[in-house]
Amino acid sequence: MVRRKMTIVGGFRFAAVAAGIKKDGRSDLALVVADGGAVAAGVFTRNLVRAAPVDLAAERLRRSRSAHAILVNSGCANACTGRTGLDAALYSTRAIAQALMIDESVVLPASTGVIGVPLPHERVIACADDLVAGLDPGGAEAFAEAICTTDRWPKLAEASLGEGRATLLGIAKGAGMIHPDMGLPGPPQATLLAFLFTDAKVARDALEYALVTAVDKSFNACSVDGDTSTNDTVIALSSGASGYTPSTGELGEAMHAVCEKLARSIVADGEGASHVAEIHVRGLATTEDARIIARTVATSLLVKTALHGKDANWGRLLAAAGRSGVRFDPSRARIAIGDADVVRDGVTLGPEAEKRAATVLAQSSYVIEIELGSGPGEFVYLTSDLGHGYVDVNAAYRS
Amino acid sequence: MVRRKMTIVGGFRFAAVAAGIKKDGRSDLALVVADGGAVAAGVFTRNLVRAAPVDLAAERLRRSRSAHAILVNSGCANACTGRTGLDAALYSTRAIAQALMIDESVVLPASTGVIGVPLPHERVIACADDLVAGLDPGGAEAFAEAICTTDRWPKLAEASLGEGRATLLGIAKGAGMIHPDMGLPGPPQATLLAFLFTDAKVARDALEYALVTAVDKSFNACSVDGDTSTNDTVIALSSGASGYTPSTGELGEAMHAVCEKLARSIVADGEGASHVAEIHVRGLATTEDARIIARTVATSLLVKTALHGKDANWGRLLAAAGRSGVRFDPSRARIAIGDADVVRDGVTLGPEAEKRAATVLAQSSYVIEIELGSGPGEFVYLTSDLGHGYVDVNAAYRS
Repeated sequence: MVRRKMTIVGGFRFAAVAAGIKKDGRSDLALVVADGGAVAAGVFTRNLVRAAPVDLAAERLRRSRSAHAILVNSGCANACTGRTGLDAALYSTRAIAQALMIDESVVLPASTGVIGVPLPHERVIACADDLVAGLDPGGAEAFAEAICTTDRWPKLAEASLGEGRATLLGIAKGAGMIHPDMGLPGPPQATLLAFLFTDAKVARDALEYALVTAVDKSFNACSVDGDTSTNDTVIALSSGASGYTPSTGELGEAMHAVCEKLARSIVADGEGASHVAEIHVRGLATTEDARIIARTVATSLLVKTALHGKDANWGRLLAAAGRSGVRFDPSRARIAIGDADVVRDGVTLGPEAEKRAATVLAQSSYVIEIELGSGPGEFVYLTSDLGHGYVDVNAAYRS
Repeated sequence: MVRRKMTIVGGFRFAAVAAGIKKDGRSDLALVVADGGAVAAGVFTRNLVRAAPVDLAAERLRRSRSAHAILVNSGCANACTGRTGLDAALYSTRAIAQALMIDESVVLPASTGVIGVPLPHERVIACADDLVAGLDPGGAEAFAEAICTTDRWPKLAEASLGEGRATLLGIAKGAGMIHPDMGLPGPPQATLLAFLFTDAKVARDALEYALVTAVDKSFNACSVDGDTSTNDTVIALSSGASGYTPSTGELGEAMHAVCEKLARSIVADGEGASHVAEIHVRGLATTEDARIIARTVATSLLVKTALHGKDANWGRLLAAAGRSGVRFDPSRARIAIGDADVVRDGVTLGPEAEKRAATVLAQSSYVIEIELGSGPGEFVYLTSDLGHGYVDVNAAYRS
């Protein structure tokens, strides 16, 4: 078996244990610590129903704009748990703070798993010392594994900054309840968790700007099932340990590259999914119009089941665009599936074209282009096919 | 086998044939004729992408406000077919008009089936004389069968007016691509087809008012898959043959009762569905707020797969409400599944309550009440569970 190169990012140490929160004994509690502290920025679900750890992390970030540690558990979302849930998040982060001998206000919590059950904080407290004792600069993969729920694989991606002088590492989880809509704290939607760590030296506002911009075109532009979670959280930490300061452009590019890879890995790992489709919508009046159409197509059940069946059913693509609420002229529609043009001027190019398209749809990933006019507005959305596996996972999730 | 009583509505005759539009040889072409003409009102999909027969029927209704016949085919939606499709709708209705010796402008077309293929009008033309020759006052059931596509059963419902002096008969089809959003012609979303026939004497405006009001709280408040069709059409015809004039209230009630029965039958017949859930949302500021939340819950994949699994996963109900965009206080949420209260003040009432709820979810139909405050806004939405059958039908639909 080929072993992935161990990723080290200056200033960060990682650890993971099995605290007994997941029923199957897999690791379920992960900790990352920036020993010298880190500049921090975060975006959180805009679902009105927000889990206790989301409320607490958003509030702590708003106050301090920096963080020393992130404590993540899988197996329990600690959402819809009222005061009991908030207390559980407080007690858990306090136990970690005490073991690290830091203030609890710089420990950010994040949770993922079943909704409606409070975090069993006593299990976190019982593991706090072990978790801290296990902190290791090479522990990123163990961290990535511990935050998984229905994920089939852990998700890591990295980019280099300053020609190797600094690193940006991203770790994410997510396979279902994936339809992120995250923004800055404020009017508050998957469970997607992602954490970005860099040893580059970045100011708080620059970090937040790069994060918000990258999330908007990556995580916020991908969907497995159209359901936005109560727990979605993306947090970026910069330790500055490398001493290298990237330009806004360089940081933005690296952040987008890492977020895009993680988003693609999440969609590929979509519950029951076997294909990743990139929906490119073009020719609309505005980017927002293009985004609305791309999202409507990407979340259509009829589109997603057709993709599962490798059926070049372009009529469903066009019908989904038509119900999006955005105005366009259907008689100008052009649709291509991979390199196969299937629709021009709103009508089919015939059975041969559709046969070519069907061979594209057999691939594990492909691009679907939908051009609806000559305007400048365009948007790209990532989506998965929807098959029996999704039903299996979600009809049985809690039983 | 018990035979259903034959429904007769004064002034109407029905016929159906197998024209070879469906590949499997089942009946696929249906005709209803009001020999003395009928006052007519219709509502059509608001999907921007509208099938040729929808454009043609809406235009003819707008001009004449009356109709002599409706020609319906299954097996082909004649949508996204450009000029060829419009011509096919024109030629088909012309052939029927000629066989009936009436003007083609009073023949309304409706189609359902695969998108992107023009209606093979030559098959309709070849059958026109046979179809007309078969017209029979007792042919409503044959009509109902011929308009089915993936439906497991034909859908008929009736109400009596004036204590039996007049009748309102409704015939509908639909099992997938069901998320109707129909309105009057104008800014123009399932394939749902429904036709309402009455021998009561009703003025055009009264008929339209009763239809629009009833559709809004029945067909427009039900969902199988969240995908709004290019072909949704509901047309009401009044022959006046009974001579009985109902009050606005009586007509409205009868129309709502028939539309509600048909909508419930469609949701029960949802592709792969085995349960019908009535989602009652209450306590919002406005009816529109309640409608948005009810629709978001009713179309959530995670909710629909949980219902399939008979899992009282109330967290998914609340999370769907939370991403709807409507403001409410989650800590005031109350949820009941059938007679089992499961959530009060936003938190679970415990495992015993959830067990009781799970027994409710084993039933073929049940009510889920979601109360989110003390406002007057409430709305009821019908939805189905989503299981393997849906994937089977829709991943293989065209192959």
